Amino acid sequence: MTLIVQKYGGTSVGSVERIRNVARRIAQSQSLGHQIVVVVSAMSGETNRLIALAHEIQKYPDPRELDVMISTGEQITIALLSMALIEIGVKAKSYTGGQVKILTDDAYTKARILKIDENRLRKDLEDGYIVVVAGFQGVDESGNITTLGRGGSDTTGVALAAVLRAEECQIYTDVDGVYTTDPRIVPEARRLKTITFEEMLEMASLGSKVLQIRSVEFAGKYKVKLRVLSSFQEGGDGTLITFEEDRNMEQAIISGIAFSRDEAKITVLGVPDRPGIAYQILGPVADANIDVDMIIQNIGHDGLTDFSFTVHRHEFVRTMSMLKDKVQSHVGARDVIGDDKTAKVSIVGVGMRSHVGIASKMFRVLAEEGINIQMISTSEIKISVVVDEKYMELAVRALHKSFDLDQIP
Amino acid sequence: MTLIVQKYGGTSVGSVERIRNVARRIAQSQSLGHQIVVVVSAMSGETNRLIALAHEIQKYPDPRELDVMISTGEQITIALLSMALIEIGVKAKSYTGGQVKILTDDAYTKARILKIDENRLRKDLEDGYIVVVAGFQGVDESGNITTLGRGGSDTTGVALAAVLRAEECQIYTDVDGVYTTDPRIVPEARRLKTITFEEMLEMASLGSKVLQIRSVEFAGKYKVKLRVLSSFQEGGDGTLITFEEDRNMEQAIISGIAFSRDEAKITVLGVPDRPGIAYQILGPVADANIDVDMIIQNIGHDGLTDFSFTVHRHEFVRTMSMLKDKVQSHVGARDVIGDDKTAKVSIVGVGMRSHVGIASKMFRVLAEEGINIQMISTSEIKISVVVDEKYMELAVRALHKSFDLDQIP
Repeated sequence: MTLIVQKYGGTSVGSVERIRNVARRIAQSQSLGHQIVVVVSAMSGETNRLIALAHEIQKYPDPRELDVMISTGEQITIALLSMALIEIGVKAKSYTGGQVKILTDDAYTKARILKIDENRLRKDLEDGYIVVVAGFQGVDESGNITTLGRGGSDTTGVALAAVLRAEECQIYTDVDGVYTTDPRIVPEARRLKTITFEEMLEMASLGSKVLQIRSVEFAGKYKVKLRVLSSFQEGGDGTLITFEEDRNMEQAIISGIAFSRDEAKITVLGVPDRPGIAYQILGPVADANIDVDMIIQNIGHDGLTDFSFTVHRHEFVRTMSMLKDKVQSHVGARDVIGDDKTAKVSIVGVGMRSHVGIASKMFRVLAEEGINIQMISTSEIKISVVVDEKYMELAVRALHKSFDLDQIP
Repeated sequence: MTLIVQKYGGTSVGSVERIRNVARRIAQSQSLGHQIVVVVSAMSGETNRLIALAHEIQKYPDPRELDVMISTGEQITIALLSMALIEIGVKAKSYTGGQVKILTDDAYTKARILKIDENRLRKDLEDGYIVVVAGFQGVDESGNITTLGRGGSDTTGVALAAVLRAEECQIYTDVDGVYTTDPRIVPEARRLKTITFEEMLEMASLGSKVLQIRSVEFAGKYKVKLRVLSSFQEGGDGTLITFEEDRNMEQAIISGIAFSRDEAKITVLGVPDRPGIAYQILGPVADANIDVDMIIQNIGHDGLTDFSFTVHRHEFVRTMSMLKDKVQSHVGARDVIGDDKTAKVSIVGVGMRSHVGIASKMFRVLAEEGINIQMISTSEIKISVVVDEKYMELAVRALHKSFDLDQIP
């Protein structure tokens, strides 16, 4: 008998009717002979409602008390789902994070899981129960309630799958898998049967927000097979997230095209090319809690160089003025220029590690479309370019076609 | 430094504004040099909202899961109240029943407290924290969440006061104390400075619904001083519920007049006066889950007697038809008659134990007003009569005046 962990997000359990559907789907999985552990989020909107209520009392709610409060969202869902299962004749039992117990550190609102006690769950599973566990929450060593931060329910699912050595951790969501790119931009986009963890990480961080990046890292670390499935469509195998060693040799070199409209590009011009200059520029940015994505510095000329990076578009104005006020004269830069009408387009695939010419093919395709590349950055399994945002969709479509992503490999 | 337990009900914490008020009041008590443990209920309406949600899934919600769900109501309040305290600069920490831990039996939805671990609370109190505990809930030995049933928050307050040997358990409610009778009927009704537990039990069960009867019993058993106070009015000492041995000798003989409009009277006429007849009549009533209040049987004549009792008015029709169908011929009774236009009026006071003539005075007063007494039943500290409901208010007013309850004793 195989053990499967299924995780259902807030939209999947967003109403009584949807909770009933989820119960039916779980019962079906059980009837196929699986032991099932279910992890659920709060009903969609509930966590935000609770946070708003807390903010009526405190502008910056006490983190310990905020966790006591928002953890009730999942607690309600586990009870309702267990009732729905019992109602259709399936033995079920709910557990809060504290009851399991899911031990975390004491970093309220963004705790990390340290250990999970599997004994009680094992016993219930052997007794034929569906075990319904509240995602997103745990307890610290002193028994204080903690939460794992946004997307924490995925992490709970993966962690339970790891501890229980589950066959698979199935993440039910409102899409039916991971696509070669966003089907709204490229209608020919294809659902991937498999994708590697490394690719998934690059896809997720680039805006294909199917899975929380933290849970993907976690799954990779503990070798948990993750599968993304739709909680609304019946049938379908979704997308399995695999380890590279399991990868089919015949698989495509490129798995997908990711993109983001949220990038703004900033360049500090004519800075002295000396050690410590990157820190002098990016230190103040980090201190202001501004996240930096791509960072590029090319070789210098005549003792001067240009230093570029991208930030989220809504941080653009703040970053520009801070650089002009505090950094430009301090580092002796000539000017600070920027552009918030940019987009990032990336091709992702573990195959490119062993294939040369992928980058040049990408650049050729973009050139043929008349798209100017403003910045380039690469990792082992990803090549990203920054382009004028008006060319973003064109770039994605052209690359999707050129790399044959619309063809089954 | 004295330790005080304060309990605030659902109306007292029914909105963000009210929670802020409660926080201010607690801070005030602390500034008088007290250590404070606070017990709170769910915000008014919340428990019913959750129960309704459960009923959307199951007609008869699974009791274990129902408790998981409704216990979130208090969990939200403890967090909000702790935030409100922290916001005004008072150190505060919340605890669910499971965190304390309040150990109960495993009778879901109506569990009984077995034991409370005081260590963690003691430590927080010594560290200067206000400890905010969720009322109404606990955990069984296996860590399953349980609830204590309606009014359970009062019980939590009393139990904590007992375990912590608190100076007082203050129950904050929407009235400012216990009155000699309902001021809506007798404007001269006076707030009692003290009332004994025994009197309070009689008053509570007779419809003066200030305190849950179970918590009063509990307080009596563990010698916890209870005080009823208003959470909306500032100042005022409320009513202290005392033990008889502490009672002021000068206190009035009668403490109050209780009444209930909910009584319906039923008489089984001409039943054979033989052993077992009471059981043959009341057995079927109990089996049908109908609560019986007063029961009266006088001596018989010629081997026959009349057997009377009262039930809640909304059970009247059901009880009558059951008696006629199943009991009358079985026991060989002549007839079953009844009246649901009746009311019960009671005088309550521990003083009547040591004073003769109280009953005769009561009957004289009613006679002078032309009120016919239909049934009489007495206990050591209470005399109850059933009268036509149209005379109820007249009876209450006349008795209140005759026993000088409008005068400070």
